[in-house]
Amino acid sequence: MTSTPTRTVDFYFDFISPFAYFAWLNLADLRASSEIVLRAKPILFPGVLKHWGQLGPAEIEPKRIYTFKTIVRYAKRHNIPLQGPATHPFNPLLALRLALQDVAGSSQHQVIDTIFRAGWGAGIDMADHQQLLDALQNANLEGEAMLAATQQPEVKAALRRNTEEAISHGVFGVPTCVVERELFWGNDGLEDLRDYLRGEDPLDPSLASHILMRPRGAERKEAVQARKNIQKQ
Amino acid sequence: MTSTPTRTVDFYFDFISPFAYFAWLNLADLRASSEIVLRAKPILFPGVLKHWGQLGPAEIEPKRIYTFKTIVRYAKRHNIPLQGPATHPFNPLLALRLALQDVAGSSQHQVIDTIFRAGWGAGIDMADHQQLLDALQNANLEGEAMLAATQQPEVKAALRRNTEEAISHGVFGVPTCVVERELFWGNDGLEDLRDYLRGEDPLDPSLASHILMRPRGAERKEAVQARKNIQKQ
Repeated sequence: MTSTPTRTVDFYFDFISPFAYFAWLNLADLRASSEIVLRAKPILFPGVLKHWGQLGPAEIEPKRIYTFKTIVRYAKRHNIPLQGPATHPFNPLLALRLALQDVAGSSQHQVIDTIFRAGWGAGIDMADHQQLLDALQNANLEGEAMLAATQQPEVKAALRRNTEEAISHGVFGVPTCVVERELFWGNDGLEDLRDYLRGEDPLDPSLASHILMRPRGAERKEAVQARKNIQKQ
Repeated sequence: MTSTPTRTVDFYFDFISPFAYFAWLNLADLRASSEIVLRAKPILFPGVLKHWGQLGPAEIEPKRIYTFKTIVRYAKRHNIPLQGPATHPFNPLLALRLALQDVAGSSQHQVIDTIFRAGWGAGIDMADHQQLLDALQNANLEGEAMLAATQQPEVKAALRRNTEEAISHGVFGVPTCVVERELFWGNDGLEDLRDYLRGEDPLDPSLASHILMRPRGAERKEAVQARKNIQKQ
């Protein structure tokens, strides 16, 4: 009998996010760990944005410029391949469906790795059927069969389910790691995740609760409206 | 004659942001530097959000929870005093006006330091006239005179002007440091700022330009609408 892994980390991501690419690479040790099960869960980031009534980083022009400069700096500093995808934003549906456990099976992590590296690393159009096929086949993956599988209704439903599951956990951005109901957002959140997994979370839960329970002193009307819109969903 | 400082860094901030508090503390060396002039420029973050059609971190409930946990962890890890302000969000207008050069004069940095530490560090209500007065007087600052000055029309105009100036530079969040038209956002952006000031910016401008010029492959209707709203302003 094999020993039971002790912890499960859910990695919610969308290929649209360069920080998901960085986080995926930075999580290589956890992906290979025998003590952690990293469950890769592709989700539709546009669906998350729509739910919370929020704009993504690429949807505000100066933030888009800043984000791309930041990732170019980060990749250089950490020696990570980065050409950026051929289009951005792009429709991530096909790539996300390929990345589902239901489609990629036991090759799931390899499929995800291949798509991230081909898109953000080497510059393919991650929305393009043929370019995705080429990337998968170059990695000796069953690209034809996987692409065919993406058109099944139950596969499409699985992506929607992942996205709804993420939102139900309070996921508001990608990537987000969820372990034991605790969220760790972004590539920046990995340091806190690692401390948490080591049993060295610096969080003082009592102080955090006290701060969170304090009253609002003022509120923008846009924030009130956003909350109402969420309740109506 | 004194020698001319070589560089100017504009620090755009709002007291509403805990990351502005952290960045302010982390910039202590730059504030004291004889080679850098750090110009502290209070701006109204709600005005920035309104301009870009964006929600702030405290305006999406799970992001609010995540943000406060993150700052509790950060403060513990870096041994920074943190009680969090008595209310949040709060109306930052009074505190921001106190922090203007026009009001605080040569004590500006001390006023800002005092308000950040009294609010985020020690827990006062940063929207409360009496608590702000007490904090300033405890720091031997001319609280009465400064509070009186905040009611002058030209002071109110100066805060609006700062906010518009920030937006015109493409500031979309707080804190943001601007040096020679280059933006560095957040407490996280300080590492890139320091590299830049040292002449060690890892940015490959050509690669960043290439990525930024690539076409959009898809776009959410909410993003198109947000862009139209900005153009109408």
